[in-house]
Amino acid sequence: MYPKSFKKLIDHFASLPSVGPKMAERLVLHLFKQEAEKLEVFAEDLRNLKTSLNFCRRCFNICEKEYCAVCSDSSRDQQLICVVEDPLDAIAIEKTGQYKGIYHILGGLISPLKNKDEFSLRLKELENRVKEEATREIFIATNPTTEGDTTALYIRRIFKDQPVKITRLARGLATGGDIEYADEITLTEALTNRRELV
Amino acid sequence: MYPKSFKKLIDHFASLPSVGPKMAERLVLHLFKQEAEKLEVFAEDLRNLKTSLNFCRRCFNICEKEYCAVCSDSSRDQQLICVVEDPLDAIAIEKTGQYKGIYHILGGLISPLKNKDEFSLRLKELENRVKEEATREIFIATNPTTEGDTTALYIRRIFKDQPVKITRLARGLATGGDIEYADEITLTEALTNRRELV
Repeated sequence: MYPKSFKKLIDHFASLPSVGPKMAERLVLHLFKQEAEKLEVFAEDLRNLKTSLNFCRRCFNICEKEYCAVCSDSSRDQQLICVVEDPLDAIAIEKTGQYKGIYHILGGLISPLKNKDEFSLRLKELENRVKEEATREIFIATNPTTEGDTTALYIRRIFKDQPVKITRLARGLATGGDIEYADEITLTEALTNRRELV
Repeated sequence: MYPKSFKKLIDHFASLPSVGPKMAERLVLHLFKQEAEKLEVFAEDLRNLKTSLNFCRRCFNICEKEYCAVCSDSSRDQQLICVVEDPLDAIAIEKTGQYKGIYHILGGLISPLKNKDEFSLRLKELENRVKEEATREIFIATNPTTEGDTTALYIRRIFKDQPVKITRLARGLATGGDIEYADEITLTEALTNRRELV
């Protein structure tokens, strides 16, 4: 029903996460209405994504040079490593402007359902870094899910007998949320981790 | 915060309809995790979208040859023209498998809010076709919105004194819907256009 080149592009878009077939149709029609030069630039940037970028040799964040901007910044606390699942998590933390340490990108979480075990993550690399960089604190910032928790516990076990502090993102009510609608697990966490007001 | 080539691609995706900045980030990260060859093919298909496709010379649908598949099909009723806003509407109607006529793509709707007047649509082309092809019926399938209705009324006025029947998509309750939750305008339409059961 569609012309072939239209259909091919719809398939590309439909294969992206949270893009359904209907939305893919709309996106391609929108692109078709654009100037040819604009598509040319889009295609060129798409092609360059893999070739111009690589992983930071130290923390495995995405970067254009050998080391990422955070790792190259000597004003950051080099003995505090924040462990995250993927680069987007590191970017989210950077946006708060509150974190002054460096990162380590795991590249996933331990998930038996998705057939991801501990060997597919960059844990060996983390161990080596902690040893070489004399890390003071590992701050685990994985998602507050079963997979995130499993990974956090696994990391804690690795460093059990080493002189490094292991911390985790705080759990509790989201700012702007409503106690009435909070789920029981979140509320339990918020109660258990209650803080003294000073 | 992002590497430059990452940011550029995020901007491309974020400029697409119904893709927000957060979703664009996720899409680009997903693409970054793909094989380089896959991105290459995506980029190539994107580049080819405009070059390999053009508008059907008769109905202005998207096609790879001079005339689209519907216009080239001599078994279709050549004197019944369905007027739609854009190619996606024609595809939606084709998917029902119930329509046996041909199409005319307007390329938009009359919309004072979006600064679209009747001269930006392919109405002159429609007039010429109706004259040349001795059209029997113009079936207006624009959206059931103010803009769609305005455009439909405008088309009816153009052909007021010509021997061509003008019809419009039926209005009423959507199949599977609930009377209790139907809005008043839809319910009014459903009442006014009630049909005799035979």
